[in-house]
Amino acid sequence: MGFIFKEDEPLGSSLSFKIEKHLFSGRSQFQKLDIFETKKFGKIMVLDGFLMLTEKDEFAYHEMIAHVPLYSHFNPENVLVIGGGDGGTLREVVKHGKVKQVDICEIDGLVIEKSKEFFPDLAGSFSNPKVNVFVQDAVEFVKNKKNAYDAILIDSTDPIGPGEGLFNQEFYNNAFDALKDAGILTAQAESPFFTPELVQDIVDKNKKNFPIVKLYTAFTPTYPSGNWSFAIGSKKYDPALDVDVDAIKADNLILKYYNPEHHKASFALPNFIKKIVE
Amino acid sequence: MGFIFKEDEPLGSSLSFKIEKHLFSGRSQFQKLDIFETKKFGKIMVLDGFLMLTEKDEFAYHEMIAHVPLYSHFNPENVLVIGGGDGGTLREVVKHGKVKQVDICEIDGLVIEKSKEFFPDLAGSFSNPKVNVFVQDAVEFVKNKKNAYDAILIDSTDPIGPGEGLFNQEFYNNAFDALKDAGILTAQAESPFFTPELVQDIVDKNKKNFPIVKLYTAFTPTYPSGNWSFAIGSKKYDPALDVDVDAIKADNLILKYYNPEHHKASFALPNFIKKIVE
Repeated sequence: MGFIFKEDEPLGSSLSFKIEKHLFSGRSQFQKLDIFETKKFGKIMVLDGFLMLTEKDEFAYHEMIAHVPLYSHFNPENVLVIGGGDGGTLREVVKHGKVKQVDICEIDGLVIEKSKEFFPDLAGSFSNPKVNVFVQDAVEFVKNKKNAYDAILIDSTDPIGPGEGLFNQEFYNNAFDALKDAGILTAQAESPFFTPELVQDIVDKNKKNFPIVKLYTAFTPTYPSGNWSFAIGSKKYDPALDVDVDAIKADNLILKYYNPEHHKASFALPNFIKKIVE
Repeated sequence: MGFIFKEDEPLGSSLSFKIEKHLFSGRSQFQKLDIFETKKFGKIMVLDGFLMLTEKDEFAYHEMIAHVPLYSHFNPENVLVIGGGDGGTLREVVKHGKVKQVDICEIDGLVIEKSKEFFPDLAGSFSNPKVNVFVQDAVEFVKNKKNAYDAILIDSTDPIGPGEGLFNQEFYNNAFDALKDAGILTAQAESPFFTPELVQDIVDKNKKNFPIVKLYTAFTPTYPSGNWSFAIGSKKYDPALDVDVDAIKADNLILKYYNPEHHKASFALPNFIKKIVE
């Protein structure tokens, strides 16, 4: 006997995890948060029934959403993380020697609070002196920012629920204005295999503003299809070509996923993904 | 109400598919074969309870196991496919203009027979005039072959059941001898995320013989973790560098996955996979 957490995927498949213990269940004004202890994936976080992360494989998503744009920008001093209340993206951002200040804007304080409690390996950077935490709607937050950031990382939930506004053209336009002249934006862009129309939509919204728009992917074993995409809009640097190798050497990070060769390779897409961007 | 096919994965997770119809169930002397109609993945093939393919995503695995080694070898005239009774790998091999003859050695005639019946898009090449079909144990088959093939593609099941002998050092030694001087061998090498020890084992067996041993990966949404590896042993060509662009132009194939840029990129591995090979 035992408990199972099951997530239904878009084409009638589902991914299930054996649960050892239900550690937390609560509801904020925005969403339902559940935290489970699994047998072999460590603790997992679930929002409104959708798996957000497992301790076992979160490194892939978090390293790739952060290091690809930050090492493509040769001076990412000011960074904005949108969403990302678990702290995993923030953890990677503050590792960069060139990063001086990070704002993180997460709508749901409960996610931050419970991440600090249950996921200390992810949430350790909220108290970093470089970091300012804003618990508010990022849609409003970016409206008031002009020419403020070198990089914006959109670590959102799926485009239903509280994250919905982060998939609108107006939000993308405001994020563009919030970036400095050489600014770069990265957004988690869903599964090319299961929901190519969502990937396409995010790419198209970036194309309305940015001269350089690229898509890259990462292996994400516990997200639907195991293959996740990230859309980049960039004002100056081409993330598929420009990699700050000197900064990588200087930072000398010990990482489980990211390396500069794989950084470039992650933009060389299989045909069925490539045609989404073209 | 409805039926579910569920495959348990190594770390207590599982992947399930909604089933519309159980099209076939039978047992050969080697294994149990089931074929289901799913809602949105097309027909799927299951051997001894393990998912072998779905019509929806088989292109990724089959294009990558075939085209990467064949376009890395600049004259792959004689090819041996081991296993691959569904015909998907064979379908890709015969597309190559330079390929003159393909032997396929599959232990289980029932798999070939039922693939022809239920998966005509995969099994259409068994009757190709370039192809010789051998329904027998490949472990014995390769013992009698010396200096015979330019490429050997090992499209095996997992290392339990009838495919077990295809994971032994002796088999790998014989396969090495069955290759010509510039020969190249590719083997499906399981999931780096779930079973790194299996990947390592296949890589190590190739290292005992070949001067060049490399690992590459593909997105395989319906295999555990969505990320599958392929181990290459090569006598002459370096598959991460040597790509026969002229042959690719001449063949001018319409493919859903493979392209020469992604070919090279698929060898630039994330750190957690890279360390398996080093």
